[in-house]
Amino acid sequence: MTAAGASARTRSWWGWGWSDEMVPDAECAALASQLPGLPERPLPAPDVDDLQLPEPRLTPPASLAQVVSMLPLDRASHTYGKAYRDVVRALHGGVAAAPDAVAFPNTEADVVAMLDWAGSNNVAVVPYGAGSSVVGGVEYRGDTHAGVLSLDMSAMDGVLEVDTTSRAARIQAGTYGPAIEDQLRPHGYTLRHFPQSFEFSTLGGWLATRAGGHYATLYTHIDDLTESMRVVTPVGAGESWRLPGSGAGPSPDRMFLGSEGILGVITEAWVRLQDRPQHKASATVRFDDITDAMAAVRAVSQSGLHPANCRLLDPGEAALSGAAEGGESVLVLGVESAHHPVDSRLEELVTLAADHGGKPNERAAGEPDTAADAWRSAFLRMPYLRDGLARMSAIVETFETACTWDRIDALYQAVRADVGAAVEQVTGAPGMINCRFTHVYPDGPAPYFTVIAAAKRGQELAMWDDIKAAAMESLHRHRATITHHHAVGRDHRPGYDRQRPEPFATALRATKAALDPLGMLNPGVLIDPR
Amino acid sequence: MTAAGASARTRSWWGWGWSDEMVPDAECAALASQLPGLPERPLPAPDVDDLQLPEPRLTPPASLAQVVSMLPLDRASHTYGKAYRDVVRALHGGVAAAPDAVAFPNTEADVVAMLDWAGSNNVAVVPYGAGSSVVGGVEYRGDTHAGVLSLDMSAMDGVLEVDTTSRAARIQAGTYGPAIEDQLRPHGYTLRHFPQSFEFSTLGGWLATRAGGHYATLYTHIDDLTESMRVVTPVGAGESWRLPGSGAGPSPDRMFLGSEGILGVITEAWVRLQDRPQHKASATVRFDDITDAMAAVRAVSQSGLHPANCRLLDPGEAALSGAAEGGESVLVLGVESAHHPVDSRLEELVTLAADHGGKPNERAAGEPDTAADAWRSAFLRMPYLRDGLARMSAIVETFETACTWDRIDALYQAVRADVGAAVEQVTGAPGMINCRFTHVYPDGPAPYFTVIAAAKRGQELAMWDDIKAAAMESLHRHRATITHHHAVGRDHRPGYDRQRPEPFATALRATKAALDPLGMLNPGVLIDPR
Repeated sequence: MTAAGASARTRSWWGWGWSDEMVPDAECAALASQLPGLPERPLPAPDVDDLQLPEPRLTPPASLAQVVSMLPLDRASHTYGKAYRDVVRALHGGVAAAPDAVAFPNTEADVVAMLDWAGSNNVAVVPYGAGSSVVGGVEYRGDTHAGVLSLDMSAMDGVLEVDTTSRAARIQAGTYGPAIEDQLRPHGYTLRHFPQSFEFSTLGGWLATRAGGHYATLYTHIDDLTESMRVVTPVGAGESWRLPGSGAGPSPDRMFLGSEGILGVITEAWVRLQDRPQHKASATVRFDDITDAMAAVRAVSQSGLHPANCRLLDPGEAALSGAAEGGESVLVLGVESAHHPVDSRLEELVTLAADHGGKPNERAAGEPDTAADAWRSAFLRMPYLRDGLARMSAIVETFETACTWDRIDALYQAVRADVGAAVEQVTGAPGMINCRFTHVYPDGPAPYFTVIAAAKRGQELAMWDDIKAAAMESLHRHRATITHHHAVGRDHRPGYDRQRPEPFATALRATKAALDPLGMLNPGVLIDPR
Repeated sequence: MTAAGASARTRSWWGWGWSDEMVPDAECAALASQLPGLPERPLPAPDVDDLQLPEPRLTPPASLAQVVSMLPLDRASHTYGKAYRDVVRALHGGVAAAPDAVAFPNTEADVVAMLDWAGSNNVAVVPYGAGSSVVGGVEYRGDTHAGVLSLDMSAMDGVLEVDTTSRAARIQAGTYGPAIEDQLRPHGYTLRHFPQSFEFSTLGGWLATRAGGHYATLYTHIDDLTESMRVVTPVGAGESWRLPGSGAGPSPDRMFLGSEGILGVITEAWVRLQDRPQHKASATVRFDDITDAMAAVRAVSQSGLHPANCRLLDPGEAALSGAAEGGESVLVLGVESAHHPVDSRLEELVTLAADHGGKPNERAAGEPDTAADAWRSAFLRMPYLRDGLARMSAIVETFETACTWDRIDALYQAVRADVGAAVEQVTGAPGMINCRFTHVYPDGPAPYFTVIAAAKRGQELAMWDDIKAAAMESLHRHRATITHHHAVGRDHRPGYDRQRPEPFATALRATKAALDPLGMLNPGVLIDPR
């Protein structure tokens, strides 16, 4: 009945990932010792049995009872996503907004029945993949519904069909990242979509939020990997045709891609696969000057060489992850191919970076690239460390954006200055504001910022919200998007509302009213609830 | 005042392209001699002075009078697009559906004023780029409006800004293809978007119809080249931000891309540019067996080699264009790059094709590829030949689609059989049904069919409509898209209505009602008029 049932390991209900990866208390304290004024001991990991969950207000009909859970663990774990502010609230036991029930539909018929029942009973339905939202995307905030149902799609999982001729697969929306790859591997294929949340997110969640994968260029966004989608809306279900391309009207899929659960529930999709890469090579290049580094990345992005990885770490990010020290920026370059040797392409990329003042890492052939490895390990463990520091009442959160190349220098400086000032004003001490580029396009990069600062126990949320408001304001002033791949949810509404063109807002509201006339689906996300 | 005013050459008001490229009468007769039972002489090119244009029903206000024309030439030339059925109707003098007036706005304020005036007077507005629609996209069909205004955007033209850092340009919607390239060339850039209609189509038209360029893979669709768009709707104007990528809700641009003038008037866009290619190479490969040829193209499309050109001509198409004879299929491969030599990539592609039974053309280095050249010349002159044959009462028309690789063999055989049977039944004699692939994706190709047959003078339209209905039915049975890049317009409505998912149709109707509450914009395109 619970989502975690299939695995021997237990998922953390309040923090990131696996319970057994939780950072030990002593390490939490050691991590926090670098920040001034934090308490000596971490908050304990909260116990579900200690929570004051409100009484469930819903009584699902008998026909649905066996796919609906009201267990405290299920309700608690579906209260929030996995943003810093979610973790902090859970650490303090704040789960008053827990859903009344969690549904685990097994079939599309279950989904339809659930929506029908919810519609007849003024129940809000929050579609839920694996709950890794960091933007308040799966958390009900409101008081106009008679109850809240979290619709966890994880029981509708698995690769259903593989078309080896067209290199595509039909996959259920609730399938987690690792299961997708495990089931494609025997066919020699990969979806090759690896967001940082890969282990703890689903195909449906990726589609609903327009997820961005690990790769820096070309086919990395789930949008481009989507061949067709099936969606259940409150007024009926529909499926786009499997087509490699079509110019028949506006793309139906693009309307549901990024709709974040407000228009319908994605039940399955045909996705485009790729042959598994056989050739890989990577290198790192260091820069004394971040402006040179950015110019190098711009040249790479406009070179047509399409590196699989092109991740620029600014001096703070490089130092934090152990990839460099002494104020250097680090560019991690990677190339891969299923068909062709890639060494000459890597050489061209490194030369291009060197032409812009970069210093390639010297190492013998076959020797591991320690800077790249250091960064990669830090990358994967980062969310667990984040939770450890949150237990120490530190602020550790990220935000990300994208802008055109002509604005990146100004944006980088301004965001660091503005958010730095906000940290100092709010917490009384300076913090760390680091940046890396996660994706690069010929017309601009996607910078990803990390903020680390000491908060005061009990005031973490208020402090972070003020800092985040300053970040959103800074992004807006530079016309950088409120989100490149984290989505809008509820937390990004202020920035999103100012960013989207008014005719599109009008269209989205009209679409919402037509497909979800009762306004029951994920109220408050993307647009105001009815 | 007229769209053609800027050029010394004259545009044909009834047929394709330039008047001085019209095929001479003797060549028309010679072309037609290969088809049995056609008349001996071509219909004459129709003269505007002979047309019976209905009296214009509109009186634009004085403030707009100087940007509105009621000249017969303007009204006649804006009655139809350039489909075969448009040409036939014009040849027979049938322009009863001519717009009452043609507006040539100079500014966005003109567009707004025009929509305001039209809305207050129950006037239908048909947005018009350069009128190369082949799907009834610019032709009013109805009787519920007090008048019809064709909104020709060609006076709002020119590249307004070039951002050399981000490699992007702001371009007005009415700019023709050649003007775009001419104005980008001094900067060393190209938009590199070359649809077959390039000379006679505009950026706005490309955006409104999701145009596909000449290139077979990667960045060829205008969708992917769009950084931001500005759109004037009847309820207000809006502009998306210039962003290289964004995950903030469903893409606003993707809602207007392909909206075919029913939601608003696109006035300008920021588009992504590319460096001008410096390295080019091409080759042709012949195949005895079309099935082998398709398998070779599939391997190429899935190889990650991204050829700029990958055009497969089936035996009929290859013979017609002089690229091959004796039942061979021809694959035209091309590679190009702004930065890197491409010869080794071409070699890999040719080897891949040879592995699937292809016979590469033998030629010395530097020697021109005659098969590729023959095909390219035929390609560019084809629309003029089409008009010449139409004057001989032949049927010459194309339709195009896309499907996944698993269905292509069956689709190819079925379409040729079904349409062949329809031609024979309708005209009483067999016709030619040729096919080429214009674009290829890892998950499927975009086949483009040409139909050539003898009609009976005066019955051309009825005969073609029956054949086209059979083609649409055949595509639908194989779940191949009703259009890959020609758009839907009014002619493809039967296929489009069956293809699009019902929830999306609901959303599109709601969006239309919200943005164009009076239903004045391009009524009947994509959805039913109010």
